[in-house]
Amino acid sequence: MGLFSKDIKTMDDLFVHTLQDIYYAEKQIVKALPDMIKKATDPQLKQGFKTHLGETETHVTRLEQVFKMKGIEAKGVDCPAIDGIIEEADDVAGEVDDKKVLDAALIAAGQAVEHYEITRYGTLIAWARQAGRDDIASVLQKTLDEEKATDKKLTTLAESTVNRKAA
Amino acid sequence: MGLFSKDIKTMDDLFVHTLQDIYYAEKQIVKALPDMIKKATDPQLKQGFKTHLGETETHVTRLEQVFKMKGIEAKGVDCPAIDGIIEEADDVAGEVDDKKVLDAALIAAGQAVEHYEITRYGTLIAWARQAGRDDIASVLQKTLDEEKATDKKLTTLAESTVNRKAA
Repeated sequence: MGLFSKDIKTMDDLFVHTLQDIYYAEKQIVKALPDMIKKATDPQLKQGFKTHLGETETHVTRLEQVFKMKGIEAKGVDCPAIDGIIEEADDVAGEVDDKKVLDAALIAAGQAVEHYEITRYGTLIAWARQAGRDDIASVLQKTLDEEKATDKKLTTLAESTVNRKAA
Repeated sequence: MGLFSKDIKTMDDLFVHTLQDIYYAEKQIVKALPDMIKKATDPQLKQGFKTHLGETETHVTRLEQVFKMKGIEAKGVDCPAIDGIIEEADDVAGEVDDKKVLDAALIAAGQAVEHYEITRYGTLIAWARQAGRDDIASVLQKTLDEEKATDKKLTTLAESTVNRKAA
């Protein structure tokens, strides 16, 4: 975006900007997940991250579908938020040696990522509905439901197995 | 933290690190909110941010209480996640001229901040309980409840007034 102009003039501009933000974020998550899969020890956690990698690839495709429904080209904008969340996950994981403590740290990092996505999709869905684009809202809703389900699975995993073993 | 040593060895180390992370984050939010209050146009939104500034100051104090309960000094560690979330909020707000669109962007930014806090407090509470520190969990739970209430208030505000006016 331009440094000297106010490029977001309408709610539609703001919607598109946020769509580009989450498009960049989803692509960064696709890049980050293989490392999390590699580091995870608990088999359920490893499998959970693998499943979520497949889902995240679908989320990227769904966003491309939304760009098409808006009649615009799919592209990302820098998203310092997801960069920071992933950087922090890397930093913390790099400090942990014990495998069970690392699993707990990976779950926490995964949940931070999920919550970022939950808030952005929630916002986009509200804006799409207000603009009368229920068709777009319902595409985004599918992804939001999956992000929320992943967050819940991570909570269950944290409470039932991984953290207990590490405590 | 050291670059060449693995400083997080136990679940307790991970808990303390995450406590230091959210302590830094809460302090950054205290610094960021006055600007959001200044930029907000909708009187309910402005008042909501003001109320949340007061709550956030209490959250800082509660974290200092938790450090004391752990018998350690209160200090923060860099939290690239919250820095990224706040940087992104500033970037987007700087691009918006229309007051109603700006209000919608500020609500979205506020919700991204709340969701980051919700995930971190949720994690800390689970870890405190697993470590048998229900006393610490219940202090943190008060803050989590307030963060969730703020997120809900922002959703209501977005759906009922601000976004509708800007659409």
